[in-house]
Amino acid sequence: MSPANPMFSTPEMAAIFSPEAHVGRMLEFEAALAQAEAAAGVIPAEAAQAIAAACRVERFDIPALYRAAVPAGTLAIPLVRALTEQVTPEGRDYVHWGATSQDVIDTAMVLQMRDGLTLLIDRLLAVGDACAALAEQHRRTLMPGRTLMQQALPITFGLKAARWLGMTTRQVARLDALRREALVVQFGGAAGTLASLGDAGTRVVELLAERLGLGVPDLPWHAERDRVAEIAAALGVVSGAMAKIATDLVLLAQTEVGEVSEGAAPGKGGSSAMPQKRNPVDATFALAAARLAMGAVPVVLSGMAQEQERAVGGWQAEWEALPDLFLATASAVERVRQALDGLEVDAVRMRENLGISESLTMALARRVGRPAAYRLVQAAVARVREDGTTLRDAALADEQIRAVLSEDEIDQALDPAGYIGSADVFIDRALVRYREVRAAVQ
Amino acid sequence: MSPANPMFSTPEMAAIFSPEAHVGRMLEFEAALAQAEAAAGVIPAEAAQAIAAACRVERFDIPALYRAAVPAGTLAIPLVRALTEQVTPEGRDYVHWGATSQDVIDTAMVLQMRDGLTLLIDRLLAVGDACAALAEQHRRTLMPGRTLMQQALPITFGLKAARWLGMTTRQVARLDALRREALVVQFGGAAGTLASLGDAGTRVVELLAERLGLGVPDLPWHAERDRVAEIAAALGVVSGAMAKIATDLVLLAQTEVGEVSEGAAPGKGGSSAMPQKRNPVDATFALAAARLAMGAVPVVLSGMAQEQERAVGGWQAEWEALPDLFLATASAVERVRQALDGLEVDAVRMRENLGISESLTMALARRVGRPAAYRLVQAAVARVREDGTTLRDAALADEQIRAVLSEDEIDQALDPAGYIGSADVFIDRALVRYREVRAAVQ
Amino acid sequence: MSPANPMFSTPEMAAIFSPEAHVGRMLEFEAALAQAEAAAGVIPAEAAQAIAAACRVERFDIPALYRAAVPAGTLAIPLVRALTEQVTPEGRDYVHWGATSQDVIDTAMVLQMRDGLTLLIDRLLAVGDACAALAEQHRRTLMPGRTLMQQALPITFGLKAARWLGMTTRQVARLDALRREALVVQFGGAAGTLASLGDAGTRVVELLAERLGLGVPDLPWHAERDRVAEIAAALGVVSGAMAKIATDLVLLAQTEVGEVSEGAAPGKGGSSAMPQKRNPVDATFALAAARLAMGAVPVVLSGMAQEQERAVGGWQAEWEALPDLFLATASAVERVRQALDGLEVDAVRMRENLGISESLTMALARRVGRPAAYRLVQAAVARVREDGTTLRDAALADEQIRAVLSEDEIDQALDPAGYIGSADVFIDRALVRYREVRAAVQ
Amino acid sequence: MSPANPMFSTPEMAAIFSPEAHVGRMLEFEAALAQAEAAAGVIPAEAAQAIAAACRVERFDIPALYRAAVPAGTLAIPLVRALTEQVTPEGRDYVHWGATSQDVIDTAMVLQMRDGLTLLIDRLLAVGDACAALAEQHRRTLMPGRTLMQQALPITFGLKAARWLGMTTRQVARLDALRREALVVQFGGAAGTLASLGDAGTRVVELLAERLGLGVPDLPWHAERDRVAEIAAALGVVSGAMAKIATDLVLLAQTEVGEVSEGAAPGKGGSSAMPQKRNPVDATFALAAARLAMGAVPVVLSGMAQEQERAVGGWQAEWEALPDLFLATASAVERVRQALDGLEVDAVRMRENLGISESLTMALARRVGRPAAYRLVQAAVARVREDGTTLRDAALADEQIRAVLSEDEIDQALDPAGYIGSADVFIDRALVRYREVRAAVQ
Repeated sequence: MSPANPMFSTPEMAAIFSPEAHVGRMLEFEAALAQAEAAAGVIPAEAAQAIAAACRVERFDIPALYRAAVPAGTLAIPLVRALTEQVTPEGRDYVHWGATSQDVIDTAMVLQMRDGLTLLIDRLLAVGDACAALAEQHRRTLMPGRTLMQQALPITFGLKAARWLGMTTRQVARLDALRREALVVQFGGAAGTLASLGDAGTRVVELLAERLGLGVPDLPWHAERDRVAEIAAALGVVSGAMAKIATDLVLLAQTEVGEVSEGAAPGKGGSSAMPQKRNPVDATFALAAARLAMGAVPVVLSGMAQEQERAVGGWQAEWEALPDLFLATASAVERVRQALDGLEVDAVRMRENLGISESLTMALARRVGRPAAYRLVQAAVARVREDGTTLRDAALADEQIRAVLSEDEIDQALDPAGYIGSADVFIDRALVRYREVRAAVQ
Repeated sequence: MSPANPMFSTPEMAAIFSPEAHVGRMLEFEAALAQAEAAAGVIPAEAAQAIAAACRVERFDIPALYRAAVPAGTLAIPLVRALTEQVTPEGRDYVHWGATSQDVIDTAMVLQMRDGLTLLIDRLLAVGDACAALAEQHRRTLMPGRTLMQQALPITFGLKAARWLGMTTRQVARLDALRREALVVQFGGAAGTLASLGDAGTRVVELLAERLGLGVPDLPWHAERDRVAEIAAALGVVSGAMAKIATDLVLLAQTEVGEVSEGAAPGKGGSSAMPQKRNPVDATFALAAARLAMGAVPVVLSGMAQEQERAVGGWQAEWEALPDLFLATASAVERVRQALDGLEVDAVRMRENLGISESLTMALARRVGRPAAYRLVQAAVARVREDGTTLRDAALADEQIRAVLSEDEIDQALDPAGYIGSADVFIDRALVRYREVRAAVQ
Repeated sequence: MSPANPMFSTPEMAAIFSPEAHVGRMLEFEAALAQAEAAAGVIPAEAAQAIAAACRVERFDIPALYRAAVPAGTLAIPLVRALTEQVTPEGRDYVHWGATSQDVIDTAMVLQMRDGLTLLIDRLLAVGDACAALAEQHRRTLMPGRTLMQQALPITFGLKAARWLGMTTRQVARLDALRREALVVQFGGAAGTLASLGDAGTRVVELLAERLGLGVPDLPWHAERDRVAEIAAALGVVSGAMAKIATDLVLLAQTEVGEVSEGAAPGKGGSSAMPQKRNPVDATFALAAARLAMGAVPVVLSGMAQEQERAVGGWQAEWEALPDLFLATASAVERVRQALDGLEVDAVRMRENLGISESLTMALARRVGRPAAYRLVQAAVARVREDGTTLRDAALADEQIRAVLSEDEIDQALDPAGYIGSADVFIDRALVRYREVRAAVQ
Repeated sequence: MSPANPMFSTPEMAAIFSPEAHVGRMLEFEAALAQAEAAAGVIPAEAAQAIAAACRVERFDIPALYRAAVPAGTLAIPLVRALTEQVTPEGRDYVHWGATSQDVIDTAMVLQMRDGLTLLIDRLLAVGDACAALAEQHRRTLMPGRTLMQQALPITFGLKAARWLGMTTRQVARLDALRREALVVQFGGAAGTLASLGDAGTRVVELLAERLGLGVPDLPWHAERDRVAEIAAALGVVSGAMAKIATDLVLLAQTEVGEVSEGAAPGKGGSSAMPQKRNPVDATFALAAARLAMGAVPVVLSGMAQEQERAVGGWQAEWEALPDLFLATASAVERVRQALDGLEVDAVRMRENLGISESLTMALARRVGRPAAYRLVQAAVARVREDGTTLRDAALADEQIRAVLSEDEIDQALDPAGYIGSADVFIDRALVRYREVRAAVQ
């Protein structure tokens, strides 16, 4: 009974982690298990056919199963019971053969996480596309770089977008790696030995994994949750990455900065009291969703200290924490994508906001050394603060500065366009790397 | 659209935090606001009547409101719009007069939290009743105390229950204090000045709070979330307290310890593979729910760093984190109550498990001093380990021990029943304090 | 061996939680225990004198004790051994009589937390004093209120300071309440029964608590950590409150906002590359310290699920998490105080930043109703955006607006000074409440 | 000024993250930067030599630098100043050329993390060696598998050790991958453009990275902390893995289970009150350290939402959180290693603890189908509970069971040694995979 508050999820991810989808994936496991066991000669082929035929989610009363799970302790117990009733006599005795509750629940969750990772990669590529477009379009759009919220040197908006892009690229690559490495079937039976399958145990695991399109683990992993924790942590990092982009967006959208704004849309971002407001709604909800996602990570992480062959609490908490984490992460990604896709960039305002800068210091340093240059500019800045003059005028009026720099040199030093260093190279690199990863994951 | 997975919530708490209940509480705010403003002469009386008449939750399409909130940024915007359409002409212009989205959303959440706290107190008292009954019944039931999971001195099961009771009592008292102190109305208008109400602002706040049965805050608190964080933290502590009791229960229910077991019930606690198992399902889910609840606390806490007069993300994340927190805490409390109410206590097994103890050391220490006594008992214990003898026989065979203790004195020292110190006094104190608090909160 | 990175602590708090202070508090417990036991007739008076005489921290090799604690599992074991060696013969057999390691470690930590809470209250009052001064000085200093980082209605800087003050006042009151309620002695012996003290157990607890100036708990609380968790959570909330103030400060100090700046001081807040920068260093470190403090809260909270009569891990983690929490919280408070005490407020810039506002909507709403007013202002704002005109001119040019408002009325509506509602009342209330709490805690 | 409480760190990791080591690494950056810039023709070769000659950590007053960092906001500012004073005239003007504070601090931290990861891999291999030895030695040591703390099917202790080994192997592989991918130099200058280096920027980055033995990032990453967060998360997962092993150890070491105990050592694991106790001290402290480590992960994760080109708080909090995380993780790993290396395994007790099992159900199921078999065994188990008989006797006395199983078949079914399924294969796989990874990382 996963939540689906549309403010903190997306319809696609909500479908993947719905109760119906979870039960459906559990039935997929039971069908594939029967078929794998038949193929390995463990159960009769007709039994497997009968079981597979009954594994249709529309035949089950999902809310009733969830209610029965409350006293039972797992969904598997009422589901296996209900499934057994649905199976024709030739298969009835072989339902869930050799499996334990955790086998079916964990594998169903892995199948859901596979879909969830694939969806996240797809949506992160949409974020990447938006970043790449901004990086190219705004390669020459000068704006102030800001450190500790103070204007520092000039950058370009293209460089900023390229940094977002680089980070997004790494998230895509990481999720893709996890998709290949961490998605393994769970099948070990009651204590992880596959005892009831005799010699056929590992063969059944392989056939089962093949049918479900999952990897084969070295060993069952009922109480070793490091793969799950790694996925959870990766989603936390994805959310953190989205929060970084969203933080930049809300800061740039401030009334007093006004360098970007989220695109207008019907019903979007107004205020119930103030008609003039245009709120950065998508970035705000990306931040909220990222907070929720990051909050779910420690639940999974601290739950790793699992007791012996099956845990009391740490495992069960995953059933709620993992869906919450995928929903919130999907929401954070989608909200960032929306914000970026419709982003209105005010390049004029960016240029206007560009103020005094480090460039003068560097120009002076080449002549008088860095410490002296630093002191000279600090003095000039003090005059700007006191007299309200410009840095250019203060520099021109400073005899010590004029002793080493001509007016032309001062102008050149204060021209931000000549002062963006390796920004272009960095943008190119981010674009190249993104295109490589994009091609590889698809 | 709050979650309602019955495995991690209770029906009563799910009702309090349902989407319908949230919208209903928002409408209650709008009606009370109109009436308060009419009473203060800010809007016409007929307008207030018209608005109040329209504030009926069954008239609104809740899922549609939630969907519209996604672009709008708050539920308040589509709700105020939909409400305005429902109001007859005389009131239409005065809907939501002078209020901002956060006023109605926060106050609705406070009303829900009030119900949530009251429900938690009620269920914690049920836990307290169960603990009190166990403390009385098992006042003389000896069992091993265990430190670092090793048997230490004897205690009584009544003392253990009394310690659970003391902790539960403090939780009741804390939630009751919060109910009285932290539940205040939110009403400040767009920037917290009540600017649009002129001089009538604070009067309207008082009338509004009175109608809703809430406290009046010194100032609006849109971006000062300490009261909310305090409630969240208190629920985290309640959950931690429940996790402590549940931890004890799963440890005592272990096959090899076997001192308690959860009561049997149809559909409860079996295994899909092993018919002989009787799993501590309630305690297990109490632990899982407590993990989820504790995981929501940092979301609220870290969200306190709110930007200026309304936050980007930290506030909105509360909309999901607070309901999740109340649901999971309620589940943890209810699961502990169920486990305790049906608890089967095996007093014989407890007595059997009681092993060697500190008492001999203390008896010796009175004669030869603590360091020498410690060494003597350590040597005797070493012989028990090597020869498989009992501590009594090892002590009787030790000449140094026999030089200072007679056989009777050794037997007395090894009798756990004479070695439970102040347990009775502690049990009495816990019961008295619980009854005081119980009487006070009702 | 507590950390003492001066960037994330204060010298005063580092002294309270130093290893020396911890061992000193443990010795204070041992001395007081012996004296209490002598007063209760449990041990000879000369023994107590001998023990108390030896409890001098300068006699002990602190680093050696910490190293010995690694295999021993607690500091108490090597300390009791070392103390016993220091005690003259008449007391040697009575050292640590009837106590367990956790009794002395917990009580020492409670004594340290008492000092820590008192120091935090003192420093929070310094924050409160600074807020109160700003609230009074800037009662009439108009500035933009900002919601979702967009300019909303005007507020005064005094109101903002009053809201910080209200939040700070509540933190002082909460810590003061905890100081009175949660600081209780720990004394229960090996399994919490005080078994080795016979009938004298509870009398010794009372005498011990009295000597140490601590409260008497109903029962020992070795594995019921709710009081500790409550203190930890309260410090988390204090840190969150400081983070809220610091967030406002860094936002207001942005180059493009420029409404406040931290006072200059030698060595403060420059950049290694850019001489013109004046970084909000104190607010930045308050935010960093608050993050660290809030990160320690879940360690204590999740550690509450303690095993039976003494925990494996959850208790021991407190030894590091609690000092870290006090150090980081103290740093957050102190950094906010420094930022506020030296704060430079640019009232002219605040006035300049004040832009368009809700007031026009409200003026129109009184004539044409809220929905129509909202639409009219929205249209006017659109023209401001398109044509770069002012809102005043756009309103004057709008026939529908002019049909209901005169030029004077428009000017009045757009005058922010007439639009700060109940700000003054709120400021007064915050000041009054602060003074009450200030007087009460001292 | 990192903490070094020996209870929650190891001497080796404390050395890597000491204040001296941090400043030393910063100086290593400054020397390498100067040399790289000289090689790229940006500064004179003599300047680079002069700078490199001065970069000797023993010349600097570390505590004074930390104190000066408090107002300055970073260690880099006082360090660059102090270094400049130490450099001979030919180099003085070129110290820190083109760099920003964050370049040197981040790169120093990356160098420390490189050493930290290498040390963790080494110690995890020691854990792996211990697990591998246990897996081989106890390949045939039968013991109860336990799910939800109830005895389930038999397993072998070798299988349990193999599962720990599999998890440990994955941690080694993950840290090794991070060592190769995530350890990149930071160098971007004041706003990440390398503006002051003109065209030579990216060339200097490459030379600098080469000298330091670090990777070259596509772009500077001042405010994109995903690599750092990934490292932090990976350490959290390592800690969780150690907590899983330690949890198993404390549960198996319980007095009533008694299947393992930590080896005795002088000064280890006693009780200040009870001489007979042998506490699982190493496992307990592994659990405590893991809690502290996992508590540091959210600090780094939530800090990812960094503001623009340099963060206010999220970055600075890493300076304390990352060292804490490495120290606590190292302690958790080392404590687990100690516990495993000295582990005393009581194979006789394990065999004795083995109780009733699922095997009878499976034997029956082959004849009467799973549902009927389940019901029959459930009934037999009920008789065991009521009459105190053995499951064998109950089965022999049950006519329905006897109708399908002979006495021999019942005995065979109840023989746990014939019921460990694929355990051997799983053990082999874990050993093979471990040896592969072990060879690869060294």
